[in-house]
Amino acid sequence: MEIPYKIYLNEDEIPKQWYNVRADMKNKPAPLLNPGTLQPMTAQELEQVFCADLVKQELDNDTPYFDIPEEIYQFYKMYRPSPLVRAYFLEKALDTPAKIYYKFEGNNTSGSHKLNSAIAQAYYAKKQGLKGVTTETGAGQWGTALSMACAFFDLDCKVYMVKCSYEQKPFRREVMRTYGASVTPSPSNETEVGKKILAEFPGTTGSLGCAISEAVEKAVSSEGYRYVLGSVLAQVVLHQSIIGLETKTALDKYGIKPDIIIGCAGGGSNLGGLIAPFMGEKLRGEADYRVIAVEPASCPSFTRGKYAYDFCDTGMVCPLAKMYTLGSGFIPAANHAGGLRYHGMSSILSQLYDDGLMEAVSVEQTAVFDAAQKFARVEGILPAPESSHAIRAAVDEALKCKETGEEKTIVFGLTGTGYFDMYAYQRFNDGEMTDRIPTDAELAESLSKLPKV
Amino acid sequence: MEIPYKIYLNEDEIPKQWYNVRADMKNKPAPLLNPGTLQPMTAQELEQVFCADLVKQELDNDTPYFDIPEEIYQFYKMYRPSPLVRAYFLEKALDTPAKIYYKFEGNNTSGSHKLNSAIAQAYYAKKQGLKGVTTETGAGQWGTALSMACAFFDLDCKVYMVKCSYEQKPFRREVMRTYGASVTPSPSNETEVGKKILAEFPGTTGSLGCAISEAVEKAVSSEGYRYVLGSVLAQVVLHQSIIGLETKTALDKYGIKPDIIIGCAGGGSNLGGLIAPFMGEKLRGEADYRVIAVEPASCPSFTRGKYAYDFCDTGMVCPLAKMYTLGSGFIPAANHAGGLRYHGMSSILSQLYDDGLMEAVSVEQTAVFDAAQKFARVEGILPAPESSHAIRAAVDEALKCKETGEEKTIVFGLTGTGYFDMYAYQRFNDGEMTDRIPTDAELAESLSKLPKV
Repeated sequence: MEIPYKIYLNEDEIPKQWYNVRADMKNKPAPLLNPGTLQPMTAQELEQVFCADLVKQELDNDTPYFDIPEEIYQFYKMYRPSPLVRAYFLEKALDTPAKIYYKFEGNNTSGSHKLNSAIAQAYYAKKQGLKGVTTETGAGQWGTALSMACAFFDLDCKVYMVKCSYEQKPFRREVMRTYGASVTPSPSNETEVGKKILAEFPGTTGSLGCAISEAVEKAVSSEGYRYVLGSVLAQVVLHQSIIGLETKTALDKYGIKPDIIIGCAGGGSNLGGLIAPFMGEKLRGEADYRVIAVEPASCPSFTRGKYAYDFCDTGMVCPLAKMYTLGSGFIPAANHAGGLRYHGMSSILSQLYDDGLMEAVSVEQTAVFDAAQKFARVEGILPAPESSHAIRAAVDEALKCKETGEEKTIVFGLTGTGYFDMYAYQRFNDGEMTDRIPTDAELAESLSKLPKV
Repeated sequence: MEIPYKIYLNEDEIPKQWYNVRADMKNKPAPLLNPGTLQPMTAQELEQVFCADLVKQELDNDTPYFDIPEEIYQFYKMYRPSPLVRAYFLEKALDTPAKIYYKFEGNNTSGSHKLNSAIAQAYYAKKQGLKGVTTETGAGQWGTALSMACAFFDLDCKVYMVKCSYEQKPFRREVMRTYGASVTPSPSNETEVGKKILAEFPGTTGSLGCAISEAVEKAVSSEGYRYVLGSVLAQVVLHQSIIGLETKTALDKYGIKPDIIIGCAGGGSNLGGLIAPFMGEKLRGEADYRVIAVEPASCPSFTRGKYAYDFCDTGMVCPLAKMYTLGSGFIPAANHAGGLRYHGMSSILSQLYDDGLMEAVSVEQTAVFDAAQKFARVEGILPAPESSHAIRAAVDEALKCKETGEEKTIVFGLTGTGYFDMYAYQRFNDGEMTDRIPTDAELAESLSKLPKV
């Protein structure tokens, strides 16, 4: 059967349920802990911060499938199914016997996979009768996605945007405003934690961990608001499973079995979603796949971090999570993959990695943009810097196949487009891109401050 | 039969031929004239400027179908078929009995339909053994598309970008550079015509007509180069017919017959392509459709221009074309629809309009962005300012249906996305958008300078 360039499922083949990979994990991810009592967070405690239905999903390690509510499903039809693309042109350019596929999540206005969870979280907030939600955004993809979702359900949306990103990406901000969101550069004077950080570090350009603290504080101190988060959490991995489920349906349709599945990993939402059904088969002993997480060398949570309980935010207002972490005080060198600069990693993926069920590699920024540019020229899609980490690793695997002559099937997640990242491409085009990898001493220093649990 | 949100044709349903609407026109579009002799341009004359195969297409008023070469067809498969979307959410928001469909051409990195012709023109240039091509770009969509096409065929690509656009849209420029194009702000000191204009109007921020003159001069004075153009020409309307052919195939599949077909009109490439097969039926007396061209009130070629021979560029180096024109010296007030600021209009569309086979309306900028924002919020796509002119007119027609209760079927062309137009959205979000409609005296002054033919 000839494989088309783009495999589009029919609309009625969009999955009707999300898959919860935790149900098939023997070793469950460790629970979130109350930072005061060091006891597992209860539903009641979590509901102060998060929407009630989302707390249920967050705490449920056993239910394998969750029905996708009809309102969310209708919204999914606006931009899903997303195409699974056979990278014929890339294969040809690399002259590799490998067969390369990528699941492209960038063909929606948010420009990334983030919309899959944003619309779900907005829906549950609306269902609960809330007025609005608060969140943080770094690169801006999550903030954009949430703005779109909130506009659809007529919810107020308050975004704390890391200040350096707010200033460098005014157009991201305008997309959010066009969708009716209010966008505040973080740290701000709107919150106690923001004021404290500004007093301690005047002139700081902010960080994701700090913006999270502000958004959480704003949510818990405002009537009718809750906080929502675009990555790391188990509920997000659940919603993002739609990526993997569609991918698997499309591959199964053509009788294709991947050998290697690759995704970039920041907080783990895209990778967790992409691999979910494949990992499920692996956990149940039904199939085997190599799974590779790709992270920036400047922020190497998996490859150089520690598996331990840590704070999720700078202000230490969030629960503790057990995860591969570089320490909540770790500040990665400036790089252009804003979505991959988080110090920690999804607890689900951390457990899978610790159990040896997946691998991780780190890649340097110039090599990433080199792959991104080549990909853009042959495949016609200008990828986001984050997504390009996966391209780099996929290309490297395909080049290994060229050496060995193996006809491996490689599937990677192309999470989004780089239209709002042209400053980064400009640096690359001008030969001015740099990267800085943390020293062992720096990491040791940062990791020495993990909480004692 | 239930109509899905997005009708995707199968890959093998992508049309294998372009349709040449001129073959069915009783009154053919008037020929291009040599500005010196006022005689019709010969193939030999045109081949000094344009690629030989494209000249054949340009001059052929009789052949109804042209085979799409295999290399172009393979490239089309990268991003085509494009979806025909049923605007269920927009219909609901408008509470209209009208059924609204839009053909969405923005899901490719160039962000618009321009790629359909860019890849064709690059292919014929490569086939002819050329080193490269030159062109101009205003809003940047055409330049981006051509850069992508040239990267694919390994052709040199030299873009003259209208200076104000070059400065206001640095990120458009970077996309082109990422694809390997060289981008020069126009007017420049690289050409005689550029130098002359700079001497006459120091500090000018350029115009499309001036950038065309520079690109043509550069092409004819460089060994192994030709000039390519993204709109206005008959060859471009031919290539863009793929939009209409796919639309018609998708509609036919579900037994849908449109009542009204709407497209924005700058030089006419998108509208000409969208309507081609429908107009063919109309010309052959097989069906009837209302066809509406939508243009900005600030640059109203159809609604307030004159049908006459005029210069295509400021430097008067191009052939004369008979078209609806505002005069080649007309400078529209600053607006945000850079792709709709051309003083003239496709000769094909001009003839069809003059023959009463289509209508035209002009719309003001704030009304356009109001429609754009509402559309973005309910349909999840952030439209380009140019495309939003068609949205405005489609919404107006749907609202008329609401009044009359008529269940008309409206199809419009959504040519592209607005990711590089966020400055314009920012003006709108801040309530600072303005528009300026030319006075009758201004138009009369500009039209008084038409060449005597």
